[in-house]
Amino acid sequence: MEIIRIDDPADSRVTPFLSIRERDIVGRQGRFIAEGKVVLNVLLNSSRFRAESILVLENRLAGLSEIVENAPVKPPVYVASREVMDRIAGFPIHRGVLAIGEKGPALDAADIFDGLADQALIVVAVGIANHDNLGAIFRNAAAFGADAVLIDPTCCDPLYRKAIRVSVGAALKVPFATVPNPTSLAADLMARGFDTFALSPRGRTDIRHIKTSGRVALYLGTEGEGLPDALLARMQTVRINMAKNFDSLNVAAASAIALHHFASTESEPQHWPEYMDRTLAS
Amino acid sequence: MEIIRIDDPADSRVTPFLSIRERDIVGRQGRFIAEGKVVLNVLLNSSRFRAESILVLENRLAGLSEIVENAPVKPPVYVASREVMDRIAGFPIHRGVLAIGEKGPALDAADIFDGLADQALIVVAVGIANHDNLGAIFRNAAAFGADAVLIDPTCCDPLYRKAIRVSVGAALKVPFATVPNPTSLAADLMARGFDTFALSPRGRTDIRHIKTSGRVALYLGTEGEGLPDALLARMQTVRINMAKNFDSLNVAAASAIALHHFASTESEPQHWPEYMDRTLAS
Repeated sequence: MEIIRIDDPADSRVTPFLSIRERDIVGRQGRFIAEGKVVLNVLLNSSRFRAESILVLENRLAGLSEIVENAPVKPPVYVASREVMDRIAGFPIHRGVLAIGEKGPALDAADIFDGLADQALIVVAVGIANHDNLGAIFRNAAAFGADAVLIDPTCCDPLYRKAIRVSVGAALKVPFATVPNPTSLAADLMARGFDTFALSPRGRTDIRHIKTSGRVALYLGTEGEGLPDALLARMQTVRINMAKNFDSLNVAAASAIALHHFASTESEPQHWPEYMDRTLAS
Repeated sequence: MEIIRIDDPADSRVTPFLSIRERDIVGRQGRFIAEGKVVLNVLLNSSRFRAESILVLENRLAGLSEIVENAPVKPPVYVASREVMDRIAGFPIHRGVLAIGEKGPALDAADIFDGLADQALIVVAVGIANHDNLGAIFRNAAAFGADAVLIDPTCCDPLYRKAIRVSVGAALKVPFATVPNPTSLAADLMARGFDTFALSPRGRTDIRHIKTSGRVALYLGTEGEGLPDALLARMQTVRINMAKNFDSLNVAAASAIALHHFASTESEPQHWPEYMDRTLAS
């Protein structure tokens, strides 16, 4: 593990970590920011993405050495005092762990499809422009073993800093690709043997009554507009029953319920995940 | 409807709206802030809480007049330009709708219990210190018709500004009370005929295999620590099965799945809620 002490916030080696919030807005030219130990661990073990460098608070270094040492490729680790790290980032980095990741080439949806088994679960996100919601959808997709997330061009970037953080790294783990037209995609999915379901408060069938096996695609739209009518007309529509006087459910919560329903996860009681970062907890 | 034009940010009538973020921290002495039209509507129709005054952007007034006119009690409506409103609040109020609510006396858990029917669903939140998570739990509780939320003293305040906003007003709608000791509460709940379930990744039973009727209490703990062992030992423990390599679920998402499972909501396909505030959507 290559450890490099940084004492000057203007050191060119940490340029990619400069002024993080400002760069969130203007973009990072093919790079993204991973925050926290849990997300760093996902990044270091990703087959798709590569960690370019790591910047950590001096008192967090010991706790990270194991995951860096175990990584297939070990990026340089820059270590700084709190004062220097905060001056680099431009605001207090409580978690004390940052990494620069390389986006690499985008995945093609067709390649994702070609790699799917006969039993598969994919999410198609349409118009999810809120990073919290998209990040949470990825987290739920990973938790329930979804094979991929497809996003339409009006979704936000799953590799935006906050989306990655909220996903607890799932945005780096679950394969995703942008599809130009989610409506025409539906026909393609059906040709590939998918049962396609659109989740909507107007859905015809209570999701609890849906039984599936094989390949399932779950379409999710925004809370406000919902999925376009042209899309709803092409597939089975399912709803989550709610109380009549408060029929308001966040799209991420709805995705959790629907993915849990469609998931084939059957597991024994689990121990608390050891990698769970306390700073992420409530 | 009493409409009062405010041109001076120092006008004493809008003092409760001054420096909102700073007041979030120091507290509001028995008051809370409601943001946005949806939440205002819940507040205006609350039997528990009372709106003391409303502050709106001049261009939002027309869209609010109906809900204010229909309210059982009509608080004064202060109207301001964007510049004046932002100077009062101390930051840009995009949504343009604020109200001051009065907390009134706290509810007593015993009074809540005495009002419950033979079929009831309550949530017991333990150690939920994150306002997003507690707000989302309230939203899910309302969506699935839960009768009450009980919180232990280590939970955050459901009437904190962000918790109310994330709950989309559910924190003003679902009765809640603080219970001093959630572990001893369990015995009380059982004596009152509740089946009590603790949601935990270590839960013995897959929640999908649980059938209930009558009174159900669902205990939720933090993502990091989980529910205390002493508590888990006293009740049935249930788990949500997840993928083996990413067993990480946000507590709010877990609450959505569990409440959906326990809810008795049976509804027809719904139209999109008319009151859904676009600004809340993804």
